[in-house]
Amino acid sequence: MKIDILSLFPEMFEGFVNTSIIKRAIDAHLVEVHIHDFREFSNNKHKKVDDYPYGGGQGMVLMCQPILDCLKSIVTSESLVILMSPQGRTLNQTYSQELSLEKHLIIICGHYEGFDERIRDYVDVELSIGDYVLTGGELASMVVCDSIIRLIEGSIKEESHEDDSFSSGLLEYPQYTRPFEYDGNTVPDVLMSGHHENIRKWRLKQSLLKTYRKRPDLLIKKELNEEEQKILQEIKEND
Amino acid sequence: MKIDILSLFPEMFEGFVNTSIIKRAIDAHLVEVHIHDFREFSNNKHKKVDDYPYGGGQGMVLMCQPILDCLKSIVTSESLVILMSPQGRTLNQTYSQELSLEKHLIIICGHYEGFDERIRDYVDVELSIGDYVLTGGELASMVVCDSIIRLIEGSIKEESHEDDSFSSGLLEYPQYTRPFEYDGNTVPDVLMSGHHENIRKWRLKQSLLKTYRKRPDLLIKKELNEEEQKILQEIKEND
Repeated sequence: MKIDILSLFPEMFEGFVNTSIIKRAIDAHLVEVHIHDFREFSNNKHKKVDDYPYGGGQGMVLMCQPILDCLKSIVTSESLVILMSPQGRTLNQTYSQELSLEKHLIIICGHYEGFDERIRDYVDVELSIGDYVLTGGELASMVVCDSIIRLIEGSIKEESHEDDSFSSGLLEYPQYTRPFEYDGNTVPDVLMSGHHENIRKWRLKQSLLKTYRKRPDLLIKKELNEEEQKILQEIKEND
Repeated sequence: MKIDILSLFPEMFEGFVNTSIIKRAIDAHLVEVHIHDFREFSNNKHKKVDDYPYGGGQGMVLMCQPILDCLKSIVTSESLVILMSPQGRTLNQTYSQELSLEKHLIIICGHYEGFDERIRDYVDVELSIGDYVLTGGELASMVVCDSIIRLIEGSIKEESHEDDSFSSGLLEYPQYTRPFEYDGNTVPDVLMSGHHENIRKWRLKQSLLKTYRKRPDLLIKKELNEEEQKILQEIKEND
């Protein structure tokens, strides 16, 4: 997969592309990530990228020319062009999985002051990471990349995301590791028992309990099997 | 406001704290941001921070000792301790506004493999930025900081976020700036008219139209005034 990101702040991405799983995926040629400073495409002699809004109003607006000329220099028939925007569809795990199958993503990072509406004509998807406003699309684009890249085959061990929150439709069960005791709090007995079936059942029940208490909306969306239905019924009766 | 972030990847934050509005807010002493590498608090001679899960299973689990000992070294009675986790409440603009009024935030960045459950006992809020899984809490914590810091008085011009998407309960109206024509697409006539009242009405209608088409859920939450109700009625009739 190839990801091109259009941004005015390429230096913001340095820590991201050089850390941990992302760096490993890049080094293993699973993904290429390129950051393009669209200021370089401005045909204004001062390399200006924004201007006052037509019709008046506060703040500045990103001009379409630098962004679209930069976009045109890299877009192909295989590209999916994404615009980070609070007005977009909201990213979720299912959509990250879909995006992880694309060959070429181009991600345009907007700016807190807004951008010229005509940019939208060249975009396939407007994407938001949540119902909050950020100073720019940079962090949002990194969130999208991170959630996608970890799903590309080979970037992390397959088993590692089988138990992910959301992937099974339930929140993850509680995990414990050494030390056995911290500040007087110890690890639940069942996890020390070595009894695999009891551990499996306990974890399933804890997953259902967490989901029921914290994110009941996820239970509505999920098709529960017979065992899960029975445990959930018990949870509800004891609540 | 003071923000302390606990993370295993402090270098990921360099771009963030050195760019744009965040740097400006730090330089203007509106906010202090400190990154703590909790590996330094590990009392293991190899500075280990994770270990195998009790009860078996794939992957490693972050140990409570390094994180909690780091936390204890900075927490005060004025701190709000946040744990970034896909299991947490989902961030939204209203909650960002609440958080922007806090004196001291401590944000713990989890790890994609999960962390010892006992860490939760020391946490005030578990916070998620959306229903997707990330490789770690680092980007999520930056998203939280970005959405909060821009709301601190003085960090950006007050007027700049009056028209934010979500802040008014509606999506922002279309913006246009120079050039007047790009690829044959021109700016709507009304914005060139200089007629302020017509421009205001056009923008309000476009805001309502965008929100109606893209995010009708926002219209249910918002109390519309008489003018807005009338325009929305017209939009629905013509749809």
